[in-house]
Amino acid sequence: MEDIKPTEKKNFSRALLSRIPHYRKYLSSLSDKEGYISATVLANKLSLGEVQVRKDLAVISGEGRPRIGYEIKPLLLSIENALGKDRISEAVIVGAGKIGCALLEFDGFLDYGINIVAAFDTDSHKIGTFPSGKPIFGTDKIKEYCTEHNTRLAVIAVPTRSAQEVCDILVSSGIKAIWNFARIDLKVPKDIKVYREDLALSLAHLNSLIND
Amino acid sequence: MEDIKPTEKKNFSRALLSRIPHYRKYLSSLSDKEGYISATVLANKLSLGEVQVRKDLAVISGEGRPRIGYEIKPLLLSIENALGKDRISEAVIVGAGKIGCALLEFDGFLDYGINIVAAFDTDSHKIGTFPSGKPIFGTDKIKEYCTEHNTRLAVIAVPTRSAQEVCDILVSSGIKAIWNFARIDLKVPKDIKVYREDLALSLAHLNSLIND
Repeated sequence: MEDIKPTEKKNFSRALLSRIPHYRKYLSSLSDKEGYISATVLANKLSLGEVQVRKDLAVISGEGRPRIGYEIKPLLLSIENALGKDRISEAVIVGAGKIGCALLEFDGFLDYGINIVAAFDTDSHKIGTFPSGKPIFGTDKIKEYCTEHNTRLAVIAVPTRSAQEVCDILVSSGIKAIWNFARIDLKVPKDIKVYREDLALSLAHLNSLIND
Repeated sequence: MEDIKPTEKKNFSRALLSRIPHYRKYLSSLSDKEGYISATVLANKLSLGEVQVRKDLAVISGEGRPRIGYEIKPLLLSIENALGKDRISEAVIVGAGKIGCALLEFDGFLDYGINIVAAFDTDSHKIGTFPSGKPIFGTDKIKEYCTEHNTRLAVIAVPTRSAQEVCDILVSSGIKAIWNFARIDLKVPKDIKVYREDLALSLAHLNSLIND
């Protein structure tokens, strides 16, 4: 029966997903949200191609009306839905080192309807502290916490040697998707999604674009 | 005349670039590097598609020989070249906060031939310290340092309100590519490359893949 209510988020590519907050930001900034906006205007304002905008909006909310465009209010509502604003997803971080704490403090996740609610670490000096008001627990509390809160999203920011062990605990705690900063390919059951972050990649790609 | 010596890196897509360290890791691990390896074996070992492997290697080092495959030693050499191992690119970070320091300590950049050599910050308590053996200077030293070292790559990890000002200083200091963690679209001259990092995107995409 649960199949009847699919989430509206699931068919978005990573690329489209990255543009959605920009659509929202611009549309939200309009003083007058009555009426319509054209793909041409949106494309100009966001420095995107018009074809791109039409494709994006077709996926997010459907086709615009010929010669009129998209009704702003329902479009904004579809965007908010797409970003999961109506149902915040909670996530936890394992590993409260430099990267873990940076992510714990980063406030950009809420733009996508995600709230990082807690971190876990083995270091007793970190346990019990509340950077940015968010608690750090011992790693022995992962299962209890995630089960109780029905947490489905987790970030692994521990040293490589501990990453697989942490991953196994997370999976056994009901986590369904893992963002992995450890430099190791994690072994997980088929139904668990893992994205291995390669922090160096963006800089490497930039470097490849400039010639000596 | 400089056009005669193009860098070998410049035509790699971000996706291909992300796979190159995996090719290197596996090929380097082979105890016997004499002889040939087939696309089939490589694809199996790296859990990639065979067509993908053939395409990748064609870009990196050329076609393999029918029924024999790719000669390992020259392939490894091409990979090292592709990753810029023969000419390390130096990069600097502006902003020694949580993210800046995490990047300063991260050792994965060297896999792509990039060395983060220094950071800059306005906080006098941070200036002069050497996390991971790397110096932190005052932001007033950016121009002097980058000009002297002919630095072309920079990371902006400062608060949003300072990002454009820092960007302008970097551009006037000869920086050609900027990896921007600030949540603002930077204005730069046409010849400067900027990649705006959206730290939340990976987790948002993972979240969109799991359904309630």
